[in-house]
Amino acid sequence: MKKYFVEFIGTFFLVFTIGTVVIAPGIGLFAPLAIGAVLTAMIYAGGHISGAHYNPAVTLAVWFRGKINSGDVFPYIITQIIAAAVAALAVLFIKGNPESPMEISALPAIVAEILFTFALCLVILEVATSETTRGNSYYGIAIGFTVMAGAYAVGSVSGGVFNPAVAVGITIMGISAPSSIWIYLFANIIGGFLAAAIYKLIHSDD
Amino acid sequence: MKKYFVEFIGTFFLVFTIGTVVIAPGIGLFAPLAIGAVLTAMIYAGGHISGAHYNPAVTLAVWFRGKINSGDVFPYIITQIIAAAVAALAVLFIKGNPESPMEISALPAIVAEILFTFALCLVILEVATSETTRGNSYYGIAIGFTVMAGAYAVGSVSGGVFNPAVAVGITIMGISAPSSIWIYLFANIIGGFLAAAIYKLIHSDD
Amino acid sequence: MKKYFVEFIGTFFLVFTIGTVVIAPGIGLFAPLAIGAVLTAMIYAGGHISGAHYNPAVTLAVWFRGKINSGDVFPYIITQIIAAAVAALAVLFIKGNPESPMEISALPAIVAEILFTFALCLVILEVATSETTRGNSYYGIAIGFTVMAGAYAVGSVSGGVFNPAVAVGITIMGISAPSSIWIYLFANIIGGFLAAAIYKLIHSDD
Amino acid sequence: MKKYFVEFIGTFFLVFTIGTVVIAPGIGLFAPLAIGAVLTAMIYAGGHISGAHYNPAVTLAVWFRGKINSGDVFPYIITQIIAAAVAALAVLFIKGNPESPMEISALPAIVAEILFTFALCLVILEVATSETTRGNSYYGIAIGFTVMAGAYAVGSVSGGVFNPAVAVGITIMGISAPSSIWIYLFANIIGGFLAAAIYKLIHSDD
Repeated sequence: MKKYFVEFIGTFFLVFTIGTVVIAPGIGLFAPLAIGAVLTAMIYAGGHISGAHYNPAVTLAVWFRGKINSGDVFPYIITQIIAAAVAALAVLFIKGNPESPMEISALPAIVAEILFTFALCLVILEVATSETTRGNSYYGIAIGFTVMAGAYAVGSVSGGVFNPAVAVGITIMGISAPSSIWIYLFANIIGGFLAAAIYKLIHSDD
Repeated sequence: MKKYFVEFIGTFFLVFTIGTVVIAPGIGLFAPLAIGAVLTAMIYAGGHISGAHYNPAVTLAVWFRGKINSGDVFPYIITQIIAAAVAALAVLFIKGNPESPMEISALPAIVAEILFTFALCLVILEVATSETTRGNSYYGIAIGFTVMAGAYAVGSVSGGVFNPAVAVGITIMGISAPSSIWIYLFANIIGGFLAAAIYKLIHSDD
Repeated sequence: MKKYFVEFIGTFFLVFTIGTVVIAPGIGLFAPLAIGAVLTAMIYAGGHISGAHYNPAVTLAVWFRGKINSGDVFPYIITQIIAAAVAALAVLFIKGNPESPMEISALPAIVAEILFTFALCLVILEVATSETTRGNSYYGIAIGFTVMAGAYAVGSVSGGVFNPAVAVGITIMGISAPSSIWIYLFANIIGGFLAAAIYKLIHSDD
Repeated sequence: MKKYFVEFIGTFFLVFTIGTVVIAPGIGLFAPLAIGAVLTAMIYAGGHISGAHYNPAVTLAVWFRGKINSGDVFPYIITQIIAAAVAALAVLFIKGNPESPMEISALPAIVAEILFTFALCLVILEVATSETTRGNSYYGIAIGFTVMAGAYAVGSVSGGVFNPAVAVGITIMGISAPSSIWIYLFANIIGGFLAAAIYKLIHSDD
């Protein structure tokens, strides 16, 4: 139970921060800095308890790599999505609705989301599940910096989501249009599975 | 005695930095970056001596979790508040008064302050008082990044205080109205106790 | 083979991030932050597998210092250049061409590129190949921060490249003029060899 | 000899970065970020060889605390000042002169410089010379973040120098007026000695 609790808290603060920094009066291009920072902090706070996924694509990638019990996968994902929804409602209570959802073009957005979800999940598998890097103190920074860099790199293309739970949260908050949510669900899951497949290929002779 | 001395120095530089980066000519949206950086540095400098609380809400959370002697709680809090007051006077000497205090709306501010004081204290308990994470090199970054992210996330809602000593400091400097100080004292202490309670729940079977 | 694979992935995301943050709608002066962040993350993800060079000048410096097999040098460099080219095409697919390449003045650009490629390679040799610093958790941050600082320092002078593979990538994307590419190839290789020579001098009595 | 060499390189890149990010076309409020980053990187690159002072005030503080041989103090300081002068000439070659030096008011500038040089030197003594924190991976970040925070906090008051070698460099570059240099020499040395005295007081019973 305590693992789900930690997944709830981490995902809540990730989505709560995303919503508050995007909805006006927003903080513009400082948003990825804040988002990377809160993710880094939440990973260090919860990594030793739940693995600090806070992201269904990460949970699927970690499962495909064999580092989470199959029985935990569904409860993790449900917990993450509920946390994102609760965070979205908290943001709306505090800051109100944004004026209109961002407009994105499907094909570039899908490519961008696949690429950076792949990068995010591969970084996580290497720094947080690999034998060689066990005991390091940098895993939270590596993961948080990946999301920060990705948000700067493709934020104007796809929103820089890389996380189906975040996709649910920003849809509830009205930052993203409901008609776009399939892009994230599809591309993020593809990216996560690709990362796990590439991880296995790289480590096939371990 | 040396513990109180370190608490004084750390809290002084936290509040001195907050005041100087906010009062004109301030640095706008770079302020949370500077505040997170000075907190990170002061935690690394003093953590091994006093625990580097620099915040009455943290001292109360650590006390509730059982990692500070009861006899130290009151001296820590008094020291932090005196340090904040001295820092406020130093800022006023160097930069003068701001034109008018920020305006906040009580209910959203209370929710925002409870949430991020909770996050801050839970991060601290996990990265700096938990057996599992003992000896890590990331605790200062995790804590500093939480405050930075929180300042970006809810700075426009509540000022992003998360610390009763900071509340005293910004009130003396005229950044915050005296009529708002109860919001911080109330919400920050609630947030700290909630974090300690949740920490105990998560670790109840350790 | 897995080393080349990791060099491909790391260099791809470095160049992909550089292109996406520069080409409109770019992120202006946040670009070095994003580039330093993605490099830090990719170094932590791949350092334990390939050494995480992602840069022909680094590969040459590491080779001159004697920490890579001679037979790996050419495949590493070819892999990095191919990865940069593929990343450039991916950026063009997603964001289109920039309006016109940056204009640089050759002599200051050469000095700037030699200086910071020297700094980058010396930092790498000290934090990632020296016996004394073995097992540290800071190497990715040290290297990523060097590139970030260099991009801020001399970005307006030379573009802040410090990497022949990146030079190829930005030339393909049209950010840099084809007539400038010799500046980077020349200055970055000089900088890398200087760093290896200075490293050997400093450590001559180890 | 190799210690002086490393002090030269580290101080050179610190002052070179300060000059290039300030002189037009400068990078405005991103400057402290770049300066903190290059200092962090240079500390990780050279700390295990020379102690990575790059600052006469730090060398004096470390000497007063008893962690550098008396015979090294003068050569360290001379090396740092020469490196700063060479870096200043390199910046002038690349970017030319700024239009006019910054104007500062002596008394607030002295207070600001004493305070943050004290903070900088105390952080260094605690994270890089204390027995309790031996072997940590965070010392470069703690030190770099202190300078970054200080530059944001008091940059508009005193320039945010905290380092007599930097004072020499910015005077040669024309960023600071020759008539102000005594402020830095005086305040930075006072700050350094205060830090060493306070460090000894805190650790008097070790």
